[in-house]
Amino acid sequence: MSKGLTSRSEDYSQWYNELVTKADLAEHSSVRGCMVIKPYGYSIWEKIQAVLDQKFKDTGHSNAYFPLFIPKSFFTKEASHVEGFATECAVVTHYRLKNDGNGNIIVDEDAKLEEELIVRPTSETIIWNTYKGWIQSYRDLPILVNQWANVVRWEMRTRLFLRTTEFLWQEGHTAHATSEEAQAETAQMLDVYADFAENWMAMPVVKGKKTANERFAGALDTLCIEALMQDGKALQAGTSHFLGQNFAKAFDVKFANKEGKLEYVWATSWGVSTRLMGALIMAHSDDQGLVLPPKLAPIQVVIVPIYKSDEEFAKISEQVEIITKALKVKGISFKYDNRDTQRPGFKFAEYELKGVPVRLAFGGRDLENNTIEMARRDTRTKETVSRDGIADVIEKLLEDIQQNIYKKSFDFRTEKTTKVNSYDEFKKVLEEKGGFISAHWDGTPETESKIKEETKATIRCIPLNNVQEEGICMVTGKPSSQRVLFALAY
Amino acid sequence: MSKGLTSRSEDYSQWYNELVTKADLAEHSSVRGCMVIKPYGYSIWEKIQAVLDQKFKDTGHSNAYFPLFIPKSFFTKEASHVEGFATECAVVTHYRLKNDGNGNIIVDEDAKLEEELIVRPTSETIIWNTYKGWIQSYRDLPILVNQWANVVRWEMRTRLFLRTTEFLWQEGHTAHATSEEAQAETAQMLDVYADFAENWMAMPVVKGKKTANERFAGALDTLCIEALMQDGKALQAGTSHFLGQNFAKAFDVKFANKEGKLEYVWATSWGVSTRLMGALIMAHSDDQGLVLPPKLAPIQVVIVPIYKSDEEFAKISEQVEIITKALKVKGISFKYDNRDTQRPGFKFAEYELKGVPVRLAFGGRDLENNTIEMARRDTRTKETVSRDGIADVIEKLLEDIQQNIYKKSFDFRTEKTTKVNSYDEFKKVLEEKGGFISAHWDGTPETESKIKEETKATIRCIPLNNVQEEGICMVTGKPSSQRVLFALAY
Repeated sequence: MSKGLTSRSEDYSQWYNELVTKADLAEHSSVRGCMVIKPYGYSIWEKIQAVLDQKFKDTGHSNAYFPLFIPKSFFTKEASHVEGFATECAVVTHYRLKNDGNGNIIVDEDAKLEEELIVRPTSETIIWNTYKGWIQSYRDLPILVNQWANVVRWEMRTRLFLRTTEFLWQEGHTAHATSEEAQAETAQMLDVYADFAENWMAMPVVKGKKTANERFAGALDTLCIEALMQDGKALQAGTSHFLGQNFAKAFDVKFANKEGKLEYVWATSWGVSTRLMGALIMAHSDDQGLVLPPKLAPIQVVIVPIYKSDEEFAKISEQVEIITKALKVKGISFKYDNRDTQRPGFKFAEYELKGVPVRLAFGGRDLENNTIEMARRDTRTKETVSRDGIADVIEKLLEDIQQNIYKKSFDFRTEKTTKVNSYDEFKKVLEEKGGFISAHWDGTPETESKIKEETKATIRCIPLNNVQEEGICMVTGKPSSQRVLFALAY
Repeated sequence: MSKGLTSRSEDYSQWYNELVTKADLAEHSSVRGCMVIKPYGYSIWEKIQAVLDQKFKDTGHSNAYFPLFIPKSFFTKEASHVEGFATECAVVTHYRLKNDGNGNIIVDEDAKLEEELIVRPTSETIIWNTYKGWIQSYRDLPILVNQWANVVRWEMRTRLFLRTTEFLWQEGHTAHATSEEAQAETAQMLDVYADFAENWMAMPVVKGKKTANERFAGALDTLCIEALMQDGKALQAGTSHFLGQNFAKAFDVKFANKEGKLEYVWATSWGVSTRLMGALIMAHSDDQGLVLPPKLAPIQVVIVPIYKSDEEFAKISEQVEIITKALKVKGISFKYDNRDTQRPGFKFAEYELKGVPVRLAFGGRDLENNTIEMARRDTRTKETVSRDGIADVIEKLLEDIQQNIYKKSFDFRTEKTTKVNSYDEFKKVLEEKGGFISAHWDGTPETESKIKEETKATIRCIPLNNVQEEGICMVTGKPSSQRVLFALAY
């Protein structure tokens, strides 16, 4: 294991790429834009999945599975939807290879599909085509379904976890009898995401609404959670869409209401993806490696023995077992790294790189003194403590770490959120400080596009429950009733 | 909900199709050969996944994720592998659609891929190409990785769960320093599958080895578990392959052994798929619907109130809560179906169709007598029992049901396994009785192919730990040292 990460201040982007690879989270595959998620990275994703899945079930949703392929004709049924995705989709055109007689394996032109299939970039179309068969009356509603799946969006410039051609995600697709109910669902799922981001990922987020320019292709409203990374760029961490009746109309999905009258069904969709892994990495990690919130760390505590003889090793191992038994009772995950092929210093560096929240080092002197050295990853501090009631101490420490890294992120965001009142000030802050910039905007897509063109900053969201205040657009001087949040973004 | 399944004796195949659809397990999608797994069906698959995933982890494996797409050149590197899969694979050739100017969305010929991508039918090639970067020395071995994923094999004739173009599965891919270790892994994972089939699915299986004709494309040995369905046809429920050094050679994956000498790495792969759902359905279900083993039933106990007044309903609900609390303590899953939109008889039929193992019916008289009506799905019998200690009674009953349906399947298989000594007898038994037929065979692919051509029966496996006995091949009269198992198969 080689260490030596590029520092964040030196080259943030390089730091990220090195960290993802060296901490064994993911790597580029030989397939353009597609990543391999390595076992350690995948074990974090499994924790994310487990927590979210439970939250979805607790709010009444069930999982299901829909086809990977979407017939081209379905895909094109909702006009703005196809416009949003057509330029980045993988197309299956044939279903067989053959030997050309010269020993080469080539595509068999006799096996050309009558209708091309699109590898799903998102599943609204195939799902609403299915829901047509599931919905006749108001009694069939609501449908509250989620799918864990892989999706493909052909990206020209990719980055591990943040933007890959294939990624893993969950996509919720719900069907409702009324607009109000669908909007309530949209808001509820945004809350689920925000709760997860803040209380599990330890990452503060702003809940808001996207402008028309930034909306999901086919939605009436897109709600989002926006987080701030350590380089001052924003990252959209989850979206929840109110789709109105757009997909019901495109796929002719109607229901008989209580009065027996046919109406189009109301829809939502919502999703988070392996992009959350990128957010998790960037939100907390430092120049020494990953910093993981204890609630999502696959290994919460690692124990490293430091010994001079086999006899001492045996005695330490015996005492370690007492500790691990107590940790097990509390449901704290641990690893006793008793490999004799690596030295303690190597192990310390490895677990630091991999972001294990608590490291215990157990040496010969600890045997005599009934102590152990306890180091926390977030602050990189350590102390020697008594082994009496050590599991309680660790449990408390894990909670402290979870809270501390949240607070650190929260304070960072507060420091990096700036109100500006002129376009010059906006540009200056954007260049010198970055972060979220709160500014008045005239509400038009034209002004938003102009700002994006000139500065690359986008409106990340119009915060929910935003303060209403009179102001003037920093660019056009036209009246504005509220500030919106701008930032450079991933 | 309409009932009225076609009976098994009338038309087994039709019975199966109706059952899968009517019990809300799955349905055909509009994409040729691809299914939609509906929430109830998916909840059974989730239980299967959870149990298997824990077993994989308990045997030291970690999950990871590899790309959906495989470059054509990788796919063709292992000669017998490509031969096995080339004629049934979906090929991605383009990465963009465009508007043709007349309002039609067409494939953009300017976005043709330089190298076509194959949608994975299995992942040996892309994974071994990745392992090349992970393995340098014996210290990097073994690699014990599993992936849960979707795969695509273009099938001309499809059946829900049993044979679909896209299906869900897990594929384990391990790398080892020695042939012995890889073979031990192959055997271990077969045992995991057999244990799962017998003790969770309540489905007895024969563990065996495939003949060369039936081997996985690229394997030196394929081990399998074979189950018998109620129509007397066999179903391959899981396979574990010893791949030798074939993929290591194709992708040039070598390791330095302890002496510093370079050697090719040894490989295994093993998988089960949503096909298990088909096996589970066919193994136990009857003309009234699904019969699920309690250990895999999403709902183990359903409680239906039968009341004449709101007051009685309230009193029943109060008593039901006492029962459900006790069930919860024991980790028994339940549903209290208090819908007032459906009558009890309708509910009874629905849960029978969906295979809920235990049904409790709670009526007015039960209030007075401290009783409840308890019905078991497997035997379709019911009795009125005291509510004192009812959770203990139900816990015991669930165990009984699990054992009973296993025993029923086991006895059925015993009855349907026939030893024959001549080809005429073989044909007669195959036609009149079906099931497993144990017969001598001369060990040649030619004889095996002849039998398949003439009777459609295949050698399902050479059972592990097979009795060695002298005999003569029923077809050619050549000497044979053991019997093998033939059957018609799914």
